[in-house]
Amino acid sequence: VTGSGRAVLGIDVGGTTFTVVLLAADGEVTAAAEEPMPIGLAPTAALKTVTATARTLLATANLLPRELVAIGLAVPGSVDVARGVLRSAPNLPGWRDVPVAAIAADALEAPVAVDHDVRMAAVGESRLGAGRGVASFVCMTIGTGIGAALVLDGRPYRGASDAAGEIGHVPVATDTTAMELCGCGRRGCLETVASGRAVAERVRRLARAGAATSAPALAGGDVDAISARHVFAAAAAGDAVCARVVEDAVTALTAGVTVLVNVLNPEVVAIGGGVSAAGAALLDRLRAGVRAAAWSPAVDVVRIVPAALGTRAGAIGAALHAAEHGGRRTC
Amino acid sequence: VTGSGRAVLGIDVGGTTFTVVLLAADGEVTAAAEEPMPIGLAPTAALKTVTATARTLLATANLLPRELVAIGLAVPGSVDVARGVLRSAPNLPGWRDVPVAAIAADALEAPVAVDHDVRMAAVGESRLGAGRGVASFVCMTIGTGIGAALVLDGRPYRGASDAAGEIGHVPVATDTTAMELCGCGRRGCLETVASGRAVAERVRRLARAGAATSAPALAGGDVDAISARHVFAAAAAGDAVCARVVEDAVTALTAGVTVLVNVLNPEVVAIGGGVSAAGAALLDRLRAGVRAAAWSPAVDVVRIVPAALGTRAGAIGAALHAAEHGGRRTC
Repeated sequence: VTGSGRAVLGIDVGGTTFTVVLLAADGEVTAAAEEPMPIGLAPTAALKTVTATARTLLATANLLPRELVAIGLAVPGSVDVARGVLRSAPNLPGWRDVPVAAIAADALEAPVAVDHDVRMAAVGESRLGAGRGVASFVCMTIGTGIGAALVLDGRPYRGASDAAGEIGHVPVATDTTAMELCGCGRRGCLETVASGRAVAERVRRLARAGAATSAPALAGGDVDAISARHVFAAAAAGDAVCARVVEDAVTALTAGVTVLVNVLNPEVVAIGGGVSAAGAALLDRLRAGVRAAAWSPAVDVVRIVPAALGTRAGAIGAALHAAEHGGRRTC
Repeated sequence: VTGSGRAVLGIDVGGTTFTVVLLAADGEVTAAAEEPMPIGLAPTAALKTVTATARTLLATANLLPRELVAIGLAVPGSVDVARGVLRSAPNLPGWRDVPVAAIAADALEAPVAVDHDVRMAAVGESRLGAGRGVASFVCMTIGTGIGAALVLDGRPYRGASDAAGEIGHVPVATDTTAMELCGCGRRGCLETVASGRAVAERVRRLARAGAATSAPALAGGDVDAISARHVFAAAAAGDAVCARVVEDAVTALTAGVTVLVNVLNPEVVAIGGGVSAAGAALLDRLRAGVRAAAWSPAVDVVRIVPAALGTRAGAIGAALHAAEHGGRRTC
């Protein structure tokens, strides 16, 4: 970065981490930071922590916020894009009707365009990643939460209230007695079985109840520190308790992807987010499951591939989308 | 109809019945016929029965096929729209790679445009029915089979292989031992629980096994003649066996509509097809179920309404779509 006014900043706020990226005019990531989300703080204080990291990143690149072409902010949950307000976010408890655009713009002293995190990840992937040149594209993110965003016939599709693609809250389980409460207030949602949070929490609970699992050891002996990554690593190493939890997650994810394939008949489904870092084995099992479960004319043409931009997809998409729309709202 | 060259003909071929409509230039239905599908015949012979009915309808209106603006033919299953070929149709056993456009055009001595029945019903409803003026519209048909077609941001959305909207083959049941084989070769599809065929077949099987149900009496004492309409009528009159079968169907339909609402965030979901004739009670239960199960930001804005064009929607849509495209393929 030269300090010229052609750089773009993207910020992606999640339930577990936040990511900041600085992009050059050609889309190259010139600087990036990923830090734990300060979920213990109130929304305004938490956003100020995030923007402080962004300011540090910019300072290192000898840039001021106002020198940027645009700043894009991706947030989870239900977003009022036009007003820049986060209405609610199951994975950010306590965040209700938060004017995130105004808070971030105030802290950065520059305009900030807000949009939905998963949709921004899809924009990033469709512009620079797994969905490049694809007409009917679904980008699914499996992280703390689970969502999907749709680029249909080449255009981002939002739905009637900016809520299209909420696959994380599709019911996948039927044994109501065993189903956990979802952040959305219902039971049986895909997220409650297959999100990173759900996978980690299920193993933590089993470990506390005395199940024979190596996950606590992987987490340094601290049951509370068990993360989805520990669970996937333990399962891969033959831990039966973790393998069962992963199996349930894969079964639920298969149902979710099957729904997307049957309803949307996409050319590509890209899988991104923290849990997808579990790697090729997870993707192979998903592909096999979807092939067995989905409608042949749709499953015969779909490619299920890893997202290409990693955990930065949302921040990259937010930056690109904001730049495309002059830092204001959107398509 | 005056015999002028401005009329359009639409034909809708289903697993149970076929429908022929003649539309005036203003979209008014000037003549219509609905007859049982000759499913015992081979595809070519069956289509000749259908086109003979169309010829009779035209003769009554003093029209020859070549005087029409266009002829549209709607068929179920997997359709190659560009080639006018029905690749396969779970509800028309034995129909594989049938050149339906060529057969119908040969019989009618005029060009015939072929498209998917549920998508044509959606076009009909979006032009003249429940989806008029709606940007994000889902038209779900519950008849012998179950499908949905999508009009998104005002445009018909087909997907990568003309298969978008195949909600009938979304898995909804998890008790694999109890699940029936679907025409698509899998088990647990929505169609196997909630289609008209499935509802009727389940009660026939229960009646044969000696269950105490009034459905055979409604069917003139002939168990084999029990139809979905008999089952819904018996359930409404307090028949516990039929009520249980209807309850299962409503539960499965709720899951299917919930998926459509969560993934597509539509403004309107219109419900059409033979089973929807079960009426307001079915729709009320569906609305309540979807409200409880779907993601709030999506369910808060959706209207679930009856389709407005009845069993003629597919034929009307096929006629309008063919006329729009000069009797050739399509969007």
